[in-house]
Amino acid sequence: MNGAESLVRTLLAGGVDVCFTNPGTSEMHFVAALDRVPGMRCVLGLFEGVVTGCADGYARMADKPASTLLHLGPGLANGLANLHNARRARSPVVNIVGDHATYHHRYDAPLTADIEGFAKPVSAWIRTSADAGSVAADGAQAIVAALAPPGQVATLILPADTAWGEASGAIPRANPSGRDAVAADAVAESVAALRSGAPCAILMTGPALREKSLAVAGAIAQATGVRLLAQTSNARTQRGAGRVAITRVPYPVDQALAMLAGFRHIILVGAKAPVAFFAYPGKPSRLTPDDCAIHVLARPDQDMAGALDWLADELGADPATAPLQAPSRPPLPSGALDPDSLAQALAALLPENAIVADESITAGRNFQAATAGAPPHDWMQVTGGSIGCALPVATGAAVACPDRKVVCLHGDGGAMYTLQALWTQAREGLDVTTVICANRAYAILQHEFANVGAGAPGRRDRDMLELGRPDLDWVSLARGMGVPATKATTAEAFNDAFARGLASPGPYLIEAVL
Amino acid sequence: MNGAESLVRTLLAGGVDVCFTNPGTSEMHFVAALDRVPGMRCVLGLFEGVVTGCADGYARMADKPASTLLHLGPGLANGLANLHNARRARSPVVNIVGDHATYHHRYDAPLTADIEGFAKPVSAWIRTSADAGSVAADGAQAIVAALAPPGQVATLILPADTAWGEASGAIPRANPSGRDAVAADAVAESVAALRSGAPCAILMTGPALREKSLAVAGAIAQATGVRLLAQTSNARTQRGAGRVAITRVPYPVDQALAMLAGFRHIILVGAKAPVAFFAYPGKPSRLTPDDCAIHVLARPDQDMAGALDWLADELGADPATAPLQAPSRPPLPSGALDPDSLAQALAALLPENAIVADESITAGRNFQAATAGAPPHDWMQVTGGSIGCALPVATGAAVACPDRKVVCLHGDGGAMYTLQALWTQAREGLDVTTVICANRAYAILQHEFANVGAGAPGRRDRDMLELGRPDLDWVSLARGMGVPATKATTAEAFNDAFARGLASPGPYLIEAVL
Repeated sequence: MNGAESLVRTLLAGGVDVCFTNPGTSEMHFVAALDRVPGMRCVLGLFEGVVTGCADGYARMADKPASTLLHLGPGLANGLANLHNARRARSPVVNIVGDHATYHHRYDAPLTADIEGFAKPVSAWIRTSADAGSVAADGAQAIVAALAPPGQVATLILPADTAWGEASGAIPRANPSGRDAVAADAVAESVAALRSGAPCAILMTGPALREKSLAVAGAIAQATGVRLLAQTSNARTQRGAGRVAITRVPYPVDQALAMLAGFRHIILVGAKAPVAFFAYPGKPSRLTPDDCAIHVLARPDQDMAGALDWLADELGADPATAPLQAPSRPPLPSGALDPDSLAQALAALLPENAIVADESITAGRNFQAATAGAPPHDWMQVTGGSIGCALPVATGAAVACPDRKVVCLHGDGGAMYTLQALWTQAREGLDVTTVICANRAYAILQHEFANVGAGAPGRRDRDMLELGRPDLDWVSLARGMGVPATKATTAEAFNDAFARGLASPGPYLIEAVL
Repeated sequence: MNGAESLVRTLLAGGVDVCFTNPGTSEMHFVAALDRVPGMRCVLGLFEGVVTGCADGYARMADKPASTLLHLGPGLANGLANLHNARRARSPVVNIVGDHATYHHRYDAPLTADIEGFAKPVSAWIRTSADAGSVAADGAQAIVAALAPPGQVATLILPADTAWGEASGAIPRANPSGRDAVAADAVAESVAALRSGAPCAILMTGPALREKSLAVAGAIAQATGVRLLAQTSNARTQRGAGRVAITRVPYPVDQALAMLAGFRHIILVGAKAPVAFFAYPGKPSRLTPDDCAIHVLARPDQDMAGALDWLADELGADPATAPLQAPSRPPLPSGALDPDSLAQALAALLPENAIVADESITAGRNFQAATAGAPPHDWMQVTGGSIGCALPVATGAAVACPDRKVVCLHGDGGAMYTLQALWTQAREGLDVTTVICANRAYAILQHEFANVGAGAPGRRDRDMLELGRPDLDWVSLARGMGVPATKATTAEAFNDAFARGLASPGPYLIEAVL
């Protein structure tokens, strides 16, 4: 067995049975091993940002890593932006990057690059395999590193001769380390804050936003009056009717400052103390008042669910008492298609158990509020602020959850970064309904231009902030990649198209012209 | 004047008057300054790989840098693959990357990343401006660094507060350092090799492949019998009827070994000693025989044109005696459309003074041979081996040379990486005719699979090496971005479509189904 096969067998033994790939010459032995060894689902992406974004979406839904297969430094480079998002989502990813043969590196052939240098800013663990005999053990450690709490990007660099050289065999599954329990004094500090009588919030993210932990948090809120908040962007939130609803800290700084102004205690569960997404002249970076104490109940790598259980115990809060979101569906909208009617249509039609991948940015500011009472569903956001995330994340989620409907809500600007994901959806027959919110602008930048005090945009500014001249035609783009698509310019047309997409078993795209 | 404006004025003073942009919030003051200060042409790309590839293509044709404008670490990351190609092309690029305000960085907001870490593998010069007062001087130094021989990527990181803070003014143009003359003993060593009577080749790249230097090299060949060779991939070659023709070292290792087998001396002019693009089991990395001496006449950063002139003087070779390529046009092809008939059509129709951006890979193996006698033109290749290069390079070249026809020859696999370049061509009305060689496969990998000894591809291997199921429809993709397009499945249809593209003043795309 060669090194490549020892790695594939090690990945499978470690529970990594999906590989999102965009291979090249130096990866051909790994590709051959993927075919020879049964058990690995191989999903081709036509651009590496699709590959890494798929791995992120897969991990968010499967709670385990997929592998990627990337081609040397430039292939990894193309995947870095979505690895940045994956790192911020704390998604476990086993990133495999082919390299020149060890003895070939010193000749500085054209594709030679500093792969470890590219990998470092996004990877918690990096290793370049030294020889074929080391590949399996390196792969096993990559899995352990990826699964290390809170979830990490592990990058294994595989020189071509370590793939084709002779290896001794696969390495069996190693047990990843679990999440550490929180310390008693962290719980005591939170209890004291909650009993202080001063205004208090619990700010959560990560696994704390799953249904069960939210119910515990809801009971704590019921017992103490504490406000439950989620980070602005979260990898995955379980929400909808019958679950405990949670409010996110708003993205606009002034709204966030207003929401947080009155609190004297903020208890962090996996979250960081809230800071502005960007700096703005004359506005603070920290969003909490100076007299607000920050308490860490659980760090991102700790056992958030256990911490909330413990806190509820201390407070005598019974999860059965948590106030649950009542079901509520608006009627279908009619008339003009705009962000409000679009939100109403989503709320009216979102199917039970849907997975929403949301990069709707400005058009979607109201989507979460509108769908609060929709049937239970998962909601995934762009965690690292790098646009071009949701199309591949939706694609990877559909691979992880073939029995669930995935709905991708995307701004037109961001969707252009990784539109190649649509082809992968068609190739794999993935059940994703994509809504492109086509406002034909980087609309968020039109707001931000004013927010940073840059004055009124001139003609050349507008050229850089608008996507028109020519307008993108998303129906043509989708069809060009084998995805059926339609355009909607009224609420009625959108209702029909969205219902059609939801009823179809494969990918479907709607250009919602706003 | 704020820091951003001081930078824009400094760039203009330094002769940098084109900015390829994909901005975000942290770049809004720079965007505002671009509008306020007249003189900078701003070209929006809808993905950063387009932006950086455009800057590469622009530099190859304009012989001076454009600036880019990218959004924090992930924005730079998306542009790295084409910066890798630009680095290998030795293209001068002034890369401007916005960052969070200096005081905001420590809060680790979602988009925070190690920008210098991302930049290092591709940049010869990196600086993060410390304050608004430093920005102009940093920008002036970035231009000098970009223009330092042989041409480099200079990355200037601009924290938002250094853009919006008060600055004192622009910095006038600084004189970049010129290319050093070669040493007399390097010339003497080459003369000795050429007079040794042993088989000898001159291997060239970079500025040595411009018309005037090629004529000098041709005269040297005429006088001495030396063989003239070019690297496998070159940033820009001036070729066609009336110029000195040059043969490239082939990409396939066996062919390269065969070509180089007989030489006892190889004289390098800007080139590196030839090595295999990839390593293959049982095949050498170095392509020259063990008994072949390598002589460096001119390093990449030295004055290649002057070195060739000097060598010609020593040898009494008169550039007027150089044998020039005779004009030759084949008739238009008919019948099946395949790589040969496609090559014939290109040779029959390529207009005088065309700029060819070539990423045709397998389909195009014969394109250069076929067009050797076409009217004089420039030919640009993928220098760093990272695919997704030629569409943006063609776009940037069209910005640099608005009076010349640009022809982009592209494999379908590679074109998917940066297809967003088509929208920029439409937005700017650029005169680019794109030919997509649609073999619906990563055809090169189908060859490489066998070359690396991975056996016969199985079903899952083929899934990763073929682009079908579904086929990409390039006509739809192009129209979706506002570029008129047509599909050709016969030689006659291609002839007509190519002639139509060449006759139209704006962008046009032909899907050549092979």
